[in-house]
Amino acid sequence: MIKVGIVGGTGYTGVELLRLLANHPSAKVTAVTSRKEAGMKVAEMFPSLRGRVDIAFSTPDETDLQACDVVFFATPHGVAMAQARELLEVGVKVIDLAADFRLKDPAEFAKWYAMEHSCTDLLAEAVYGLPEVNRDAIKNARLIGMAGCYPTSVQLGLLPLLEGGKQYVETTTLIADCKSGVSGAGRKAEVGTLFAESADNFKAYGVKGHRHSPEIEQGLSLIHGAPVKLTFVPHLTPMIRGIHSTIYARIKPEGRDVDYQQLFEQRFAAEPFVDVMPAGSCPETRSVRGGNTARIAVHRPGNGDLLVILVVEDNLVKGASGQSVQVMNLMFGLPENAGLDIVPLLP
Amino acid sequence: MIKVGIVGGTGYTGVELLRLLANHPSAKVTAVTSRKEAGMKVAEMFPSLRGRVDIAFSTPDETDLQACDVVFFATPHGVAMAQARELLEVGVKVIDLAADFRLKDPAEFAKWYAMEHSCTDLLAEAVYGLPEVNRDAIKNARLIGMAGCYPTSVQLGLLPLLEGGKQYVETTTLIADCKSGVSGAGRKAEVGTLFAESADNFKAYGVKGHRHSPEIEQGLSLIHGAPVKLTFVPHLTPMIRGIHSTIYARIKPEGRDVDYQQLFEQRFAAEPFVDVMPAGSCPETRSVRGGNTARIAVHRPGNGDLLVILVVEDNLVKGASGQSVQVMNLMFGLPENAGLDIVPLLP
Amino acid sequence: MIKVGIVGGTGYTGVELLRLLANHPSAKVTAVTSRKEAGMKVAEMFPSLRGRVDIAFSTPDETDLQACDVVFFATPHGVAMAQARELLEVGVKVIDLAADFRLKDPAEFAKWYAMEHSCTDLLAEAVYGLPEVNRDAIKNARLIGMAGCYPTSVQLGLLPLLEGGKQYVETTTLIADCKSGVSGAGRKAEVGTLFAESADNFKAYGVKGHRHSPEIEQGLSLIHGAPVKLTFVPHLTPMIRGIHSTIYARIKPEGRDVDYQQLFEQRFAAEPFVDVMPAGSCPETRSVRGGNTARIAVHRPGNGDLLVILVVEDNLVKGASGQSVQVMNLMFGLPENAGLDIVPLLP
Amino acid sequence: MIKVGIVGGTGYTGVELLRLLANHPSAKVTAVTSRKEAGMKVAEMFPSLRGRVDIAFSTPDETDLQACDVVFFATPHGVAMAQARELLEVGVKVIDLAADFRLKDPAEFAKWYAMEHSCTDLLAEAVYGLPEVNRDAIKNARLIGMAGCYPTSVQLGLLPLLEGGKQYVETTTLIADCKSGVSGAGRKAEVGTLFAESADNFKAYGVKGHRHSPEIEQGLSLIHGAPVKLTFVPHLTPMIRGIHSTIYARIKPEGRDVDYQQLFEQRFAAEPFVDVMPAGSCPETRSVRGGNTARIAVHRPGNGDLLVILVVEDNLVKGASGQSVQVMNLMFGLPENAGLDIVPLLP
Repeated sequence: MIKVGIVGGTGYTGVELLRLLANHPSAKVTAVTSRKEAGMKVAEMFPSLRGRVDIAFSTPDETDLQACDVVFFATPHGVAMAQARELLEVGVKVIDLAADFRLKDPAEFAKWYAMEHSCTDLLAEAVYGLPEVNRDAIKNARLIGMAGCYPTSVQLGLLPLLEGGKQYVETTTLIADCKSGVSGAGRKAEVGTLFAESADNFKAYGVKGHRHSPEIEQGLSLIHGAPVKLTFVPHLTPMIRGIHSTIYARIKPEGRDVDYQQLFEQRFAAEPFVDVMPAGSCPETRSVRGGNTARIAVHRPGNGDLLVILVVEDNLVKGASGQSVQVMNLMFGLPENAGLDIVPLLP
Repeated sequence: MIKVGIVGGTGYTGVELLRLLANHPSAKVTAVTSRKEAGMKVAEMFPSLRGRVDIAFSTPDETDLQACDVVFFATPHGVAMAQARELLEVGVKVIDLAADFRLKDPAEFAKWYAMEHSCTDLLAEAVYGLPEVNRDAIKNARLIGMAGCYPTSVQLGLLPLLEGGKQYVETTTLIADCKSGVSGAGRKAEVGTLFAESADNFKAYGVKGHRHSPEIEQGLSLIHGAPVKLTFVPHLTPMIRGIHSTIYARIKPEGRDVDYQQLFEQRFAAEPFVDVMPAGSCPETRSVRGGNTARIAVHRPGNGDLLVILVVEDNLVKGASGQSVQVMNLMFGLPENAGLDIVPLLP
Repeated sequence: MIKVGIVGGTGYTGVELLRLLANHPSAKVTAVTSRKEAGMKVAEMFPSLRGRVDIAFSTPDETDLQACDVVFFATPHGVAMAQARELLEVGVKVIDLAADFRLKDPAEFAKWYAMEHSCTDLLAEAVYGLPEVNRDAIKNARLIGMAGCYPTSVQLGLLPLLEGGKQYVETTTLIADCKSGVSGAGRKAEVGTLFAESADNFKAYGVKGHRHSPEIEQGLSLIHGAPVKLTFVPHLTPMIRGIHSTIYARIKPEGRDVDYQQLFEQRFAAEPFVDVMPAGSCPETRSVRGGNTARIAVHRPGNGDLLVILVVEDNLVKGASGQSVQVMNLMFGLPENAGLDIVPLLP
Repeated sequence: MIKVGIVGGTGYTGVELLRLLANHPSAKVTAVTSRKEAGMKVAEMFPSLRGRVDIAFSTPDETDLQACDVVFFATPHGVAMAQARELLEVGVKVIDLAADFRLKDPAEFAKWYAMEHSCTDLLAEAVYGLPEVNRDAIKNARLIGMAGCYPTSVQLGLLPLLEGGKQYVETTTLIADCKSGVSGAGRKAEVGTLFAESADNFKAYGVKGHRHSPEIEQGLSLIHGAPVKLTFVPHLTPMIRGIHSTIYARIKPEGRDVDYQQLFEQRFAAEPFVDVMPAGSCPETRSVRGGNTARIAVHRPGNGDLLVILVVEDNLVKGASGQSVQVMNLMFGLPENAGLDIVPLLP
């Protein structure tokens, strides 16, 4: 059994890791840290885990994370970069669910996350945790910066169109109109995400600029092999889990005769966690609730020059914790779907 | 007091008309028809009206609608066109909240609504019920086809950019990514809009083509004075009321130096029910819940060539019943805001 | 126009007061204090008030509340008792929406609110703000401790059964099983009331003891003229507004032949804000959303010895701000329903 | 592998059976009937099952249910009683999730379900599907009438108090104040359970009498060995899944010294799917979302004479489909938790 440590187990990605790993056949959580809740049983804070997770939160200082095979950071931005080196040096693999190892340019990191990067030498080594793009690199990595929730959905939706320098669509006019459930904002005491503030309400936010913009553009540019520009408009929708990305791409003359349904189906045929829906479908977020699958549909209204790509994922699973377990499976040579054979919860 | 008849009072636009007119200083509902519920007190079906609305539903046949000054059709498509002529002939004004008198081309109507138009001679006379565009025509009209909920928000959001042939933005690449609360689907027994189907869920629908597309394009083309093309993608979001339209418009070279914040503010300065938010704002649907106001914000991310216009409205008020009362006020020479001075309900 | 000051305008009862008073014919808000948000326009924090409320938050210190005719405290517990005396001394009436002047026994206050009462001499003078019980006293009062949200619903539901020493039901086995929307917890940054914590979820809380228990028992005992004991179990339900109280009362032999439907109807016939539903009805919380009405139904299942009384109210209106405006109207000799003729928002 | 047939696979208990059985190690669904949807792939109606459930709906007539080892009826009331005999005769076990085999008295059935019972001779043989009460009988049964959703929660909550004639609490004054999510009403096109009708709303229903009342009283009387009377008041709460039962029981003098926390813990210590929470807890419905566990807390406010028992379950799992898989496991000698080791989905 792989010994797993979780740093920061009191947030939504932490409890989701605990849920997923509780049923993992080859991994076992041996430590969960929380400075604030040290001593409390994990299942006391999250009664859904009663009878399934027996350990208590421990302080970071007293926890022997070096005895783990892999440590997940389910922490605020800035924590993993302070602790990763020490773990890597003793052979512990590190998977960061926050943003510390996503952006390759430390100046970009500093600009968007309002802190200096303290571990720039590891940035080059860190592999971006998006298996559909980086599967081989992930297998050999010891440090992973997991893809963000929005960026996962947008990159998956555009992968077949941009990969390897394909010239099907314009790469300067891309738009991603994304909608997220409220759990995406994390388990933090804040007025804006109170039930009475966000229920029966819908709004855009971060239109001027959102941290996931540079991550998406960096990812798409690497996928494409040339600079890609995308306008990203996130919205908050009154549901707990789920992201729905509606992506607009203008077809170039050289892309007019492509069969996009077939392109998408072929690209993802072998992917265990990407499901291309039949032509004409509109995927629902609830069809992936609790599961690690992203579902995608590609539309070309009126057979015109605009592609409309619809992508749904569970932001806490494929958009975070589930994908990080998928990455762990790859890093340890396990079946990629180990612990992830979940049927989504509908209704 | 203006005597008001409502045909079809058991749906959401019907009960919303009753709510609004219950506090109207110069209008009084004297008849509400429902074939199915005839005899039942209106307040028995909608207890929110107890003590405020005393009449009962009556059958259409036995109801003397000709004694009214104005009749609202809050009915399924196809009802108003069968009854309007008779009412107009005896001098009763007609306001249709359904789609019978929206599209000017009967072939388009037949295509999108799956029925022949039975009253084509009145189509030319019917005025499109969008006061910010057609105020003067409305004042003199006897037959109104009210603007749809989505079309109201999209046309208001693009009005300052397109009006009078303005050449600020491309008119063939417009996109409206719209999100509606579930009441927009009406008060009909259907599986798809059950709570357990639509709560905690988000999805697009009608991507292949939606009835509001031709209405929006017809309206924008009239506003612009030249053909306008727009891709319309509606989504269902788990809230009761509200529409949020996120509109994308590409700036043309001749629009690069325009101050769009100022353009929007000036255009709507005199409009009683359109509120341009301060620069940088993101309007929330709840900020207009129950009220007749549409709030608009205009963004230009990174000062680039894409405008992002955010519009919120209450689909049952500014998107339907409230706007129809506004139209009635205009038709009868009343203050435009009579009965509509509502502070939205927040939280 | 009555000049109104609001201390603590950034919470839900504060913004609800602003909504209600914006349409009040005889009152005008002249000051809204907030230490933290001083200088910010009220409508900037609550865009629903744009165009309707023009003033800004001011610091408590710089605000001349003594120039007001009445001051509402929409503050956390403990604020009103520190400031009330000074206002009363210069003739300003005081209405506290928090708990400072509800409990008559300072020891009880200290026990349940974890602070000493700093103004015990005013406790005797303070009138309990529940018009259906204390209308005359309210008319002559200068200091009001408004009834809490749960206590309002429970006392109204039991009023006809207990008033004046009536011996219809047992007074030691009463049960109130109450369910509240999440806005009842206030607009405070807390994890427990986040959307992702409280949506799609239902739970009891405070079963061991809740602050509203002593308030309810004090009120019922005064109503009855003898000690009354009640078990109070509150629950949190995933909606924004609304309280539903299900009250269980055992009929005593002397109450077996009472016509309870008639008893309730007669008791409340003259009450402008209590609506007794027809026999057999089950009131819905949405039937009072945004309105100041409480709706009540009384059931006697199987014609047995147990009465089941159902009471709904909007916790922010009849349960707080609306009732406080009703009280203000009484204190100033205005029509009791001034500013409160609201048709609830359904759907 | 056990071959499983499901009659009526288009409702919520049907799709939930499909979800649970998709991960069952020893059972496989070989047929799912639906008269209306015959020919459609199950995963087309429920995309959450894409890639996991490959079969299509078939017409009841053409489906060889006799080739199954067990058939679940996830149908409206009245279907199972028409088809059970034929299946039993050829050795197929039958598990009915509807009410056909719950009530032992055909007159009671006829009264509450508005149809004559067409299969009364099997009523005596049918075993009530509540494993915590009837485990041994279930193991040997060939026909099961599954416990209803509300009745499961109420009987589990009262089991330790009433079992075997215990005299701890009064058995004529019991009250169950129950709250259910909207999926409990089924996947039927109805106005009352539309999102826009039931979101942001709370109400009681069926106060005059609900079908689950006789089932609960029959079950409790059998458990107790003497007649038990209970007042049952169900409520609808705006969530998808979950039942919360708040049960009130008056302690008799002989029950005053009982340690109820210990009583409950001991009674359920060996039960795999009943979790007694620590003293003072309030279980949340989301702590069992998607899982087969019921969680129970027992309170005695003020150490008085009233017990307050809180029970939560997922109405579609422990309240229906999950419990029926548990029953199947018992009937076929499988581990009771086979396919049911699910960690609930939180948040």
